[in-house]
This record gives sequence, structure tokens and C-alpha cells, in this order.
Amino acid sequence: MDTTFVALADPTRRAILARLTRGEASVKELAEPFEMSLPAVSKHLKVLERAGLISRARVAQSRPCRLEAAPLREVADWVEHYRRYWEQSFDRLEDYLQELQREENEGGE
Amino acid sequence: MDTTFVALADPTRRAILARLTRGEASVKELAEPFEMSLPAVSKHLKVLERAGLISRARVAQSRPCRLEAAPLREVADWVEHYRRYWEQSFDRLEDYLQELQREENEGGE
Repeated sequence: MDTTFVALADPTRRAILARLTRGEASVKELAEPFEMSLPAVSKHLKVLERAGLISRARVAQSRPCRLEAAPLREVADWVEHYRRYWEQSFDRLEDYLQELQREENEGGE
Repeated sequence: MDTTFVALADPTRRAILARLTRGEASVKELAEPFEMSLPAVSKHLKVLERAGLISRARVAQSRPCRLEAAPLREVADWVEHYRRYWEQSFDRLEDYLQELQREENEGGE
């Protein structure tokens, strides 16, 4: 999962994945919205490809990129183990805010 | 989310988070199972603290570490957008395996 997390630790790479949910795209098409050079985008694509998050066609000259979402299932399974802990922390925050509210109301009487 | 993903891209740091689900722990306690030096563990803790994934007590001399799971909710929300894409890819794999099975059965008649 290390390479998956490394690949996801960059906003451009996450934006590329988001773009690919709308269908395959060439390097040129991916470069456009980011105003990046083709080599810069290619570098990001290599990181994503190494992590198994995209695949690239071997045939067409443009070698369109395609989302491969399978490694994200591992991320989802991993993070799910922590759900109860972040829910607890939001519950504590809610309790605290209610406590503040109560004190404020009592102060106003 | 960049700092969160960077923090998660290391198996020792993920193991530290897993350990902290069982309760607070000192640097010494965290170092034990990994057979790592205290400075090496401290370095990992700094990365986790910067990402808001742990907090450290200011009072006690041992400064016990505590899990702060809130940033993981963002990860869970982000990855959830991709669920249908990995489900599709597993469906395609299943179809393919069923197709193979069918061909094998037909071949055996």
C-alpha cells in the first residue's frame, strides 16, 4: 500500500484520477487543465502506473490512460478500521458544543 | 490531504496508528515492537503529528501519544468516490472467470 499512498499524496495525481473517472484520456488531454508540460504530466502518470492506479494502452500512438481503481479498495478497507475512532472524536466534539450551548442558555436565564 | 497520504505511505507509521487504537502509548512503548531506536520512532511520530493523525500530551514527562483519527475521515470520503470503479473492475474479473468456467465445462462434455 506504500506506493498507493505515495501516488495519492499529490493533488495533481488525485486530479488526474478524478478526470479518468470520466473515461480514457491521452497525456495531451490530461495536461490541458493543469497547464503543465507533457513531460511533467508523464512523470505523474509513471507514478500512478507504478502504483497500479492507471494503465496505458499499448496500441494507439496516443497511448490513452485508463483508471484502475482496484488498489483503492485496499485503501478503503484499511481506512474503514478507523471509522469508529473518528466517529468517537466527532461525538466528543458534539458533546462539547452541546455543553457550551447549555452553559450559554443557563447564563442567559 | 497530501500530508495525510505522505504520513500513511510508510508501514511503520501505519503500524503505530494501529497500536494507538488500543490506547495511548509512550515513545518507548511504541519503539519496542519495531526494534527501532527512539530517535527513529520520534521521527515517524513527528510526521504523524504534522499530519494531525496523533497528538502528544504536554504534561507527563513520557508525553504519551494518542490517535487522532479525524483526518482519516477525509481519506474515507475521498476514496468512497471510487467505489463504483473498483466494483466494476471486480465485476469484469468475475464475468471473465465465469466465462472461463463455462468454456471448461463445455469442453468436458
